[in-house]
Amino acid sequence: MPVIRILTEPELRQIIPLDADAVKCTEGAFRALAVDKQVEMPPILRLDVPESRGEVDVKTAYIPGLSGFAIKISPGFFDNPKLGLPSTNGMMVLLSSKTGLVQALLLDNGYLTDVRTAAAGAVAAKHLSRHDASIATVFGAGVQARLQLQALTLVRPIQEVRIWARDHSKAEALVDQLKLDHGVPVTAFADPKEAVSGSHVIVTTTPADRPILDASWLEPGQHVTAMGSDAEHKNEIDPMAIARADIYVADSLKQTRRLGELHHAIEAGVVASDADFPELGHIIAGAKVGRSRDADITIADLTGTGVQDTAIATLAFQRAEELSAGKMFEC
Amino acid sequence: MPVIRILTEPELRQIIPLDADAVKCTEGAFRALAVDKQVEMPPILRLDVPESRGEVDVKTAYIPGLSGFAIKISPGFFDNPKLGLPSTNGMMVLLSSKTGLVQALLLDNGYLTDVRTAAAGAVAAKHLSRHDASIATVFGAGVQARLQLQALTLVRPIQEVRIWARDHSKAEALVDQLKLDHGVPVTAFADPKEAVSGSHVIVTTTPADRPILDASWLEPGQHVTAMGSDAEHKNEIDPMAIARADIYVADSLKQTRRLGELHHAIEAGVVASDADFPELGHIIAGAKVGRSRDADITIADLTGTGVQDTAIATLAFQRAEELSAGKMFEC
Repeated sequence: MPVIRILTEPELRQIIPLDADAVKCTEGAFRALAVDKQVEMPPILRLDVPESRGEVDVKTAYIPGLSGFAIKISPGFFDNPKLGLPSTNGMMVLLSSKTGLVQALLLDNGYLTDVRTAAAGAVAAKHLSRHDASIATVFGAGVQARLQLQALTLVRPIQEVRIWARDHSKAEALVDQLKLDHGVPVTAFADPKEAVSGSHVIVTTTPADRPILDASWLEPGQHVTAMGSDAEHKNEIDPMAIARADIYVADSLKQTRRLGELHHAIEAGVVASDADFPELGHIIAGAKVGRSRDADITIADLTGTGVQDTAIATLAFQRAEELSAGKMFEC
Repeated sequence: MPVIRILTEPELRQIIPLDADAVKCTEGAFRALAVDKQVEMPPILRLDVPESRGEVDVKTAYIPGLSGFAIKISPGFFDNPKLGLPSTNGMMVLLSSKTGLVQALLLDNGYLTDVRTAAAGAVAAKHLSRHDASIATVFGAGVQARLQLQALTLVRPIQEVRIWARDHSKAEALVDQLKLDHGVPVTAFADPKEAVSGSHVIVTTTPADRPILDASWLEPGQHVTAMGSDAEHKNEIDPMAIARADIYVADSLKQTRRLGELHHAIEAGVVASDADFPELGHIIAGAKVGRSRDADITIADLTGTGVQDTAIATLAFQRAEELSAGKMFEC
C-alpha cells in the first residue's frame, strides 16, 4: 500500500517559519537554477477561468540532489472576497525524484509560497543591497509587505521602516502591526517619492498594473526588489528604472522577459528583447558580478520560480519526516 | 475549516467503471473542446527527470458548466519496474470552478486516465467506424489493449477480436484474459498485416517510436484509432497512412501537430504543417463531417486531453458526493 504524508497549513506554519533556513534553502534553489545544467524548469502552466475572474498557475522544477520535486497549484480567484474567501490559495504535491510516486500533499493554502517569495526577497537583498543597508521602504500593505520586511531583517541591519500603499489607511494599519513585530521605528508615508528618498532597500509588493516607482526617484546606492509582477499585465517599476540601473538581476531571465518588470521595459523599447542580464543564482554562485560599488543602483526582478517551490516543499517534507508531522494516508 | 474529499484508487474503481456513462462524459468533453469557445485548455506542462528516466505531464482544462476542473499529474518513471513499481502513476486535483478551492484529491494512480483514454477510443469508433463494425484488431498487449477493446464493445457489435503485439507471448497472455472477459473468439496474430486484413476497427495502443501499422495494409472501410502517441518521439502509424486516409481526425489539432501521429506525417513532409483537419468534437457536434461512405478509411489520432481529465474527475466527484465515498479531510 503506498502511503502519502498529508500536511495542513497550521502544521506547515509550525515546521516552516520564515527564518534563516528558509532563506538558505531558497538561495540554494537559485544557485542551482543558474549554474546546474541539469535543473529542469519548464514554463509555467496557466489556466484562466474567466467566468469567475479566476486563474491558476502551475509551477514545477526538478533540482538534482533533492529527493523530491514539487508541483505547485496556485489559484487566484478575484471574486472570492465577495464570498468571504481569500483570493489566493493553493497546494503543492511533492513527488519522489526517483520514482515519481507522490510523497506528500502540502495543503498549505499558499503559505509556503508566501515563505519562499519573502525568502527570495531576502536572498536578493543579501546579494545586491549595500551591506550596511538600514532603511527599508516597502510599497504595499498586504501579506508580502509584512513578510518581505521580516525576511529583510534576517539579512540586513534594518533600523528604520517606511510603508507606502495606495490606500494610506492600509499602510497605517500595517505600521501598527509592524511596530509590534519589530523594535524599530515604522512610518506610513503618504508620498511614495518621500518614502524612497534616502532609503537603502525598496521592496515593491503590489499587484499594480502601472508603475508605482518612478525612475527619477532612485538614488545612488539604492537596491530595489520588485516582487509583485508574476503576470504579463502586472507592472510596478518605471521601465526607465530598468534602463538606468547599474545592475538588473532576474530570478529567471526567461520568466522576467515574459512576466516581470523587464517585460515592460522591453515593450517600452528601452531594453532590447534579447539583452542579456545575470540571474540571481549567477550572483550567488559568483559566476557573475552583482553590486561592485556602494553607489550602484541595483534592481532584482522576481516573478517566482518552480525551483523555489521544489526547495521549500522538500525542506517541509524533511522536517515533517523528522518530526512525524502530519497524517499518513494509505491509498 | 475547508474540507477536502480524498478518494483512493479502489474507491474510484468502484464508482467509475469503464461504462456508457464514462463514454458519454468523454464525448461531452470533446464536443465542448471543439465548439465551446469558452473552454480553456492550455498546453501540457512537461517536466523531465532524466536521471531516473522520468517524465511528468500536467494537464488541465476548464469547461464552462462543470462545477470543477481537474489538474492532472501523470508521472512516467521508466526505471520503476526494476524496483518492482509500475512505470506510470499519478493523481488529479479537482478545484472549484467558482472559487479555485480544492474540492477533491483523486489518488487514482492513473486509473481515471486509463478510463478516459479508453472511453475516448469508444467515442472515436462510435463517430468514425462503420456502424456494423464487428471485427476489431488491437496492437499492443498492455492495460489499454484490454480497456480499448472493452470500450469498443460498448459502441460496436464486436464479434471477433485479434491481438498483435511485438512480443507474441504477451499477445497470447492477453488472449487468455480476453476470452474470459468477452464471449467472442479472440486470436493472437504473429503477423500484424494479417491481423489488419479484413478487420473493421484497428486500435494501436503501444509506446512504439517507429510505425507499426503500414499504410499499404489499410483497406477501404477500415477505421484506425491511434492512441499510443502522447509525446514527440512516439509514432505508431506510417505517415503515408495519414496522407492516404479519407478522414483524419485529431482529439486536439494543436496537440496532434506537436505530439501525435500527425506530427510525424508533417515531419515526413506528406502533410502540410498548417493543414486543417477536424477534431473529434466537431464530428460529435455535427459541425464537420466524419465518415460519409462505407468505403472511407478513417483515422483518429488521440494524444489525451485535459478536457477528458476535467470531465472524468467531475463525474467521479459527483458520484462520490452522491455515495458519500472517500474520506473527508479537514485542513
